[in-house]
Amino acid sequence: MSGMTMSQKILAKHAGLDNVVAGQLIEADLDLVLGNDITSPVAIGEMKKFNTDGVFDKDKIALVPDHFVPNKDIKSAENCKCVREFAKKNKITNYFEVGKMGIEHALLPESGLTVPGDLIIGADSHTCTYGALGAFSTGVGSTDMAAGMATGKAWFKVPSAIRFELKGSFSKYVSGKDLILHIIGMIGVDGALYQSMEFTGEGVKSLSMDDRFTIANMAIEAGGKNGIFPVDEKTIEYLKEHAPGKEYEVFEADPDAEYVKTIEIDLSKLTPTVSFPHLPENAKTFDQIGDIEIDQVVIGSCTNGRISDLRMAAAILKDRHVADNVRCIVIPATQKIYMQALKEGLLEIFINAGAVISTPTCGPCLGGYMGVLASKERCVSTTNRNFIGRMGAIDSEIYLASPEVAAASAVTGKISQPSEL
Amino acid sequence: MSGMTMSQKILAKHAGLDNVVAGQLIEADLDLVLGNDITSPVAIGEMKKFNTDGVFDKDKIALVPDHFVPNKDIKSAENCKCVREFAKKNKITNYFEVGKMGIEHALLPESGLTVPGDLIIGADSHTCTYGALGAFSTGVGSTDMAAGMATGKAWFKVPSAIRFELKGSFSKYVSGKDLILHIIGMIGVDGALYQSMEFTGEGVKSLSMDDRFTIANMAIEAGGKNGIFPVDEKTIEYLKEHAPGKEYEVFEADPDAEYVKTIEIDLSKLTPTVSFPHLPENAKTFDQIGDIEIDQVVIGSCTNGRISDLRMAAAILKDRHVADNVRCIVIPATQKIYMQALKEGLLEIFINAGAVISTPTCGPCLGGYMGVLASKERCVSTTNRNFIGRMGAIDSEIYLASPEVAAASAVTGKISQPSEL
Repeated sequence: MSGMTMSQKILAKHAGLDNVVAGQLIEADLDLVLGNDITSPVAIGEMKKFNTDGVFDKDKIALVPDHFVPNKDIKSAENCKCVREFAKKNKITNYFEVGKMGIEHALLPESGLTVPGDLIIGADSHTCTYGALGAFSTGVGSTDMAAGMATGKAWFKVPSAIRFELKGSFSKYVSGKDLILHIIGMIGVDGALYQSMEFTGEGVKSLSMDDRFTIANMAIEAGGKNGIFPVDEKTIEYLKEHAPGKEYEVFEADPDAEYVKTIEIDLSKLTPTVSFPHLPENAKTFDQIGDIEIDQVVIGSCTNGRISDLRMAAAILKDRHVADNVRCIVIPATQKIYMQALKEGLLEIFINAGAVISTPTCGPCLGGYMGVLASKERCVSTTNRNFIGRMGAIDSEIYLASPEVAAASAVTGKISQPSEL
Repeated sequence: MSGMTMSQKILAKHAGLDNVVAGQLIEADLDLVLGNDITSPVAIGEMKKFNTDGVFDKDKIALVPDHFVPNKDIKSAENCKCVREFAKKNKITNYFEVGKMGIEHALLPESGLTVPGDLIIGADSHTCTYGALGAFSTGVGSTDMAAGMATGKAWFKVPSAIRFELKGSFSKYVSGKDLILHIIGMIGVDGALYQSMEFTGEGVKSLSMDDRFTIANMAIEAGGKNGIFPVDEKTIEYLKEHAPGKEYEVFEADPDAEYVKTIEIDLSKLTPTVSFPHLPENAKTFDQIGDIEIDQVVIGSCTNGRISDLRMAAAILKDRHVADNVRCIVIPATQKIYMQALKEGLLEIFINAGAVISTPTCGPCLGGYMGVLASKERCVSTTNRNFIGRMGAIDSEIYLASPEVAAASAVTGKISQPSEL
């Protein structure tokens, strides 16, 4: 019997097993069950069907209304009310009301709720984000969320894994977003279907925590069950700041762990990368991109709405101005990030550049509000999906990019990299 | 023949007549024609019906997408696209794109586009706001807007007038909003039907320009055709800052002008006032208000989203916190106000208090987005209308109040005046 991957070891531990193998069905104990304003009401409804009215642990559930909040319409208002009342009734510790909230996948790590070794499910596909901290986290449906909230358990088919062996470090104007778009371009949107994407190699240490969040966040865009990073000094520093005193367990892949394949990537060879409509796998570098005029830029989301993303965008927009025909919408992912950006003068830079700043929300990423696209409009966006019609009209177009490419594009009015400015 | 009111004198001048009388139908030259993202597309459509494809004066039209902007859905995105393309085709000088925009009735005075003596129509009912500067301005339908854009003219039935003779000055925690709610409570929502509301008396000079904007803004809520203030030193100071070098003509009512009635109000006797659901005329003072728990507070809008409104709210929220069950949404009315609030530290106060800050938009005021109410929810709002279902669910409730009452209510979680804190 061969060794286990990092993901498998976390699953085995939570299933109370010494060993698991790829393909095995297990039931495991959960450290955190997450839902948002779209999925939680469905899960709460499912619980009612099973005549369950309690939760397994009021401290191990996180309810984050963030998609259409502050409420964009009556339906979203009713959904939020449902979540609010459920949280109140069950005394959920980690219910995040407007004013305390942010985009779930930025908010939970920032709040110290996701630590290494955790097993986390969330009724949101980008729950895989917390792999950046060495947790096993994955998106589930609302029914699984309901079962998780009621029992504290979930079943898993143990995934096999692809190993991404990173070396070197990024050049200027290249960041985590370019790496993950590059990877998805290379392996396709089903290239890691139901597999773990395990990032290893000496290149990992050069990645900032925010880079890692961005990369793990988009594991699902390659079909991955989860994305996961080893725990290193940067992880520990992050935890000291955001989860002081919280206990956690660090897992490492066995030396003889079996991988479906290993892909080596030299970070220093990457260049700014843009995923063209209508799939994240349509990744292009600037030698393949001509003059493409745009209408809107969105800088934000669970993928790229963190403080370092805003810093990168602000560095580009400082003393420059958004092009006349472009709307540039900046969305700090949480209230804390908003405040930090305010204190550092980033918000002032954005406004002086002619951008607008939204309160934290998923909003335009999924065509919710705060920047929905009209027919034939094009948007360069730091979000994670560019499916047909995701951000509005069926014939609108989304180009996925890093905050630096997005900011540069806002300035020129066409898809641009910072070196063109 | 008796003399003319201030409003009548402006109308006579723009009609090329020496004299007009109440009830007379006139055609007059317009100084400015305004439309927003809801009404302009309708007006543009009307122009097409009449085979008109040009505007009378590209400098005398203001197009301000502000209601559902940044776009809240595909329909609003298409509406904004329609306005954008029309503005581009006609080289409209005063088209305000996202990043340059704000709520129309705060943005136009701030941009120096509304000056004393102007005759202004706008396809938005709160166009009466500019009366604060001694202009005659009034809301019209989209068809009149279309005709105005094409010809630069509009017809008017010359209104009679009610004179409001003000004396004294406000006590602490009383402002323009309390005065106008008091007036509407006194005369009713049709109390000034198709009449001018002319504010005079020595009490006027104690009113800040922002007070005057708030008061004129809500003239329509008493059915008024317009609200208007004399031009005094404060007006001139405001114009020096916002419309430097721009020519304007100051009109004064004739000493023998005829008024339907004169209502005397001692400003010093007013106390904080709240209009209960579902009409602005349901004005109550705090001796008539019991314990009413609330769910949401909105501080913003064309009525009360100006810098002095934000200053008043921040003074209340400083070192205090929004109640646990309350969402507090602050919406600076323009990008300039947003920036000013940021520089003065107001945004920091709001965030520390647990409020969220939206990019400038009308948003929740008309149930657009950014704070729509669920069933049975109650909102204290600094906006101008509390009609049934305006802010969301048909059985939600809106309580109209000043920024200070709104902020105090956010802190306590029930309708409160600052003196209760």
